[in-house]
Amino acid sequence: MIGAGPSGLAQLRAFQSAKAKGAEIPEVVCYEKQSNWGGLWNYTWRTGLDEHGEPVHCSMYRYLWSNGPKEGLEFADYSFEEHFGRPIASYPPRAVMFDYIEGRVNKAGVRDWIRFCHVARRITYDKATEKFTVIVEDLVNDREITEEFDWVVVASGHFSIPNVPEFSGFDTFNGRVLHAHDFRDAREFTGKDVLLIGTSYSAEDIGSQLWKYGAKSITVAHRTAPMGFKWPENWKEVPILEKVQGNIATFKDGTTMRVDAIILCTGYQHHFPFLADDLRLRTKNRLAAADLYKGVVYVTNPKLFYLGMQDQWYTFNMFDAQAWYVRDVILGRIQVPASDEERRADVKAREAAEDACADSHEAIEYQGAYVQELIDLTDYPSFDIKGANEAFFEWKDHKKQDIMGFRNHAYRSVMTGTMAPVHHTPWKDALEDSLESYLRTEPEPSSLQEAS
Amino acid sequence: MIGAGPSGLAQLRAFQSAKAKGAEIPEVVCYEKQSNWGGLWNYTWRTGLDEHGEPVHCSMYRYLWSNGPKEGLEFADYSFEEHFGRPIASYPPRAVMFDYIEGRVNKAGVRDWIRFCHVARRITYDKATEKFTVIVEDLVNDREITEEFDWVVVASGHFSIPNVPEFSGFDTFNGRVLHAHDFRDAREFTGKDVLLIGTSYSAEDIGSQLWKYGAKSITVAHRTAPMGFKWPENWKEVPILEKVQGNIATFKDGTTMRVDAIILCTGYQHHFPFLADDLRLRTKNRLAAADLYKGVVYVTNPKLFYLGMQDQWYTFNMFDAQAWYVRDVILGRIQVPASDEERRADVKAREAAEDACADSHEAIEYQGAYVQELIDLTDYPSFDIKGANEAFFEWKDHKKQDIMGFRNHAYRSVMTGTMAPVHHTPWKDALEDSLESYLRTEPEPSSLQEAS
Repeated sequence: MIGAGPSGLAQLRAFQSAKAKGAEIPEVVCYEKQSNWGGLWNYTWRTGLDEHGEPVHCSMYRYLWSNGPKEGLEFADYSFEEHFGRPIASYPPRAVMFDYIEGRVNKAGVRDWIRFCHVARRITYDKATEKFTVIVEDLVNDREITEEFDWVVVASGHFSIPNVPEFSGFDTFNGRVLHAHDFRDAREFTGKDVLLIGTSYSAEDIGSQLWKYGAKSITVAHRTAPMGFKWPENWKEVPILEKVQGNIATFKDGTTMRVDAIILCTGYQHHFPFLADDLRLRTKNRLAAADLYKGVVYVTNPKLFYLGMQDQWYTFNMFDAQAWYVRDVILGRIQVPASDEERRADVKAREAAEDACADSHEAIEYQGAYVQELIDLTDYPSFDIKGANEAFFEWKDHKKQDIMGFRNHAYRSVMTGTMAPVHHTPWKDALEDSLESYLRTEPEPSSLQEAS
Repeated sequence: MIGAGPSGLAQLRAFQSAKAKGAEIPEVVCYEKQSNWGGLWNYTWRTGLDEHGEPVHCSMYRYLWSNGPKEGLEFADYSFEEHFGRPIASYPPRAVMFDYIEGRVNKAGVRDWIRFCHVARRITYDKATEKFTVIVEDLVNDREITEEFDWVVVASGHFSIPNVPEFSGFDTFNGRVLHAHDFRDAREFTGKDVLLIGTSYSAEDIGSQLWKYGAKSITVAHRTAPMGFKWPENWKEVPILEKVQGNIATFKDGTTMRVDAIILCTGYQHHFPFLADDLRLRTKNRLAAADLYKGVVYVTNPKLFYLGMQDQWYTFNMFDAQAWYVRDVILGRIQVPASDEERRADVKAREAAEDACADSHEAIEYQGAYVQELIDLTDYPSFDIKGANEAFFEWKDHKKQDIMGFRNHAYRSVMTGTMAPVHHTPWKDALEDSLESYLRTEPEPSSLQEAS
């Protein structure tokens, strides 16, 4: 296994769960590049390369809050209520989410299966022996380790390697140009005029952070269409950037403005430099990822699996559904079609079904049905997918109503049936967003101020 | 060959030079990760990961000028005067240096030997066949290529992978924390209070950039001793950082100050993730690099060479001396001792000699003598090493006299004997530092202003 983020940890929990129920499981080894688990949720101030000279995995920023309701991503086998001992509000900040993710695997006791600070360097497959050779580097001890495995699960994520386009004049721009991947503390941009490029979640949420922490203005440039939310007064959407000269940005409609910084919210790449050519997934960021039977089995080599490589409405519980499925394939409980053709037909059917979705409403239902399909094949606790879809629909409505206020809403857990409490402080005023602060049941006067 | 920066290009020129003189040379293939040659001198606005998801090689910043006189690094086979058609001033900016580096290899016609956008993924050595297997990735076409070679020259540099320590409070600092590797346009910091950590060239020169382009204040924290130059009024040296809280930095002597940004000038790592464990150089950044016979032949495998892995007073012409030497080993003109022991004895002797140097004056002479030693073994044009040493001594004196004015001095070329002209504009006033601007023989009124 490669990676101990949400999808990798789901895989560990899946095996541990089978073992707890008396099943014989193979030896599980999980290599994790970072010194702790949590994947993207393992926050670091670092950008670029880490202390070992490896690309920093984290794409999160300091004040990130879940951008969808936690009711849409809750683990079916470990609810927020179980973890925190009581219901909590619906859009937890980063530290609260990390605590929750960690809670399940701490309870499962799988930490020993992970080799931290071990980066995968090269994985190859030998058709003769039907084994994978995995070369990893022990970063702390600066030595290579080579091991053989019967199965490999790639759970290294696809929101870590930025897609970074160039625009004319970037090489002489008199400010900082960065990708969303390297955005950390919004206060760096307080009082600044910031240009964001892109219209996906990164642009929407980083722009919101900038607004919350006092940027002077937020300008978002789009290539095809604006996001179209009801933005605050100092936020505008403009056509795509054409060039920068000094600090002056010129857009496609000929308008210009002075900007202090440019943040490229231009997405991420599926990037697997540690896999040999014939094992490497090549897919766009879409719901029906290319070349994956049932969304997880690599079509040309069914002993190789990929978790969470889809574009995502569903996240944690989808990774769970996938991990339980992969576990059951490895345990021999589920048979993957032996013919390449049959596996490919499954992929084609998924692509066609996604392409047939008319809008995001249908896309959510499409992915919900995928999660249900996998859950029905394993003993992962089933849950009310329809209810989860509803939470996503509501969430989208709440965003449409008030993009700076949607996080003040509460939703009902489909796992416990409990309605979440409303958070003690509106999102825009909760500048201090530590775990302690978020879990208070009453707002504190100090919650309006940065703790430091 | 891995890398087409100054040392890799020296190797190509060395082979081409032998070929031009009628020698039979082996097939030479140079894999370069970037889309152009020049190594560190191939400037990019990018930081972190590049357009292919690979670590950005460039550590240079927009307004960088050579921090030593060009008379200390001139190619013995291609003078600045030959390239520019006339003498030019002694501290060329980045673009001028790039032009010069490129000029020699354009003349040599070796560009076809380089596979650009090809990153080395894994190099192994087979004792039985006595061949290296080199796996590279063609980044543009997203495919792997595997080739066998009799010899491998590693010329990938060691100023690309930052050494990034953590200080208490970095995870909650309300500004940008970056390594010198990611520093680009000094104007990002105009009007800012900037803290630099470290006392080597990066701190000295990035601080000078910040001063030149209008930072409000420059504070440099040292762990052992201050640099001790005569700094401008808004520049101070302080003991090492103990912690940051919000925007407040606290130093070891208990003093505090508010800082907007922190730049870690904390050096670089020798990092070769593409080499198998047994081929990987492990050395400190020192004049007598570990495990390299004659500073270039890997002691445990004399078919593997490393160029430019030393800490450096001498640069380009030292890489040349090394490249010509390596070439002659490969061509069979020079015999490397067959015994491991003998090779190791050479390394030990070099280490002892370096350790015996009392000061930087002796260290310069030590490295000068090393360059001379290699030159004497090949047909690389010999030059006046004593004269080059003198230029380094003078340079150090000029820095001591006026750290913001040393670049206004001129030195005599040891290659051509010509005295360099004094530059038309003092360094501190030459805000516009393009090639065109630098090569003007008269200052232009506009040279005091940014062109854009």
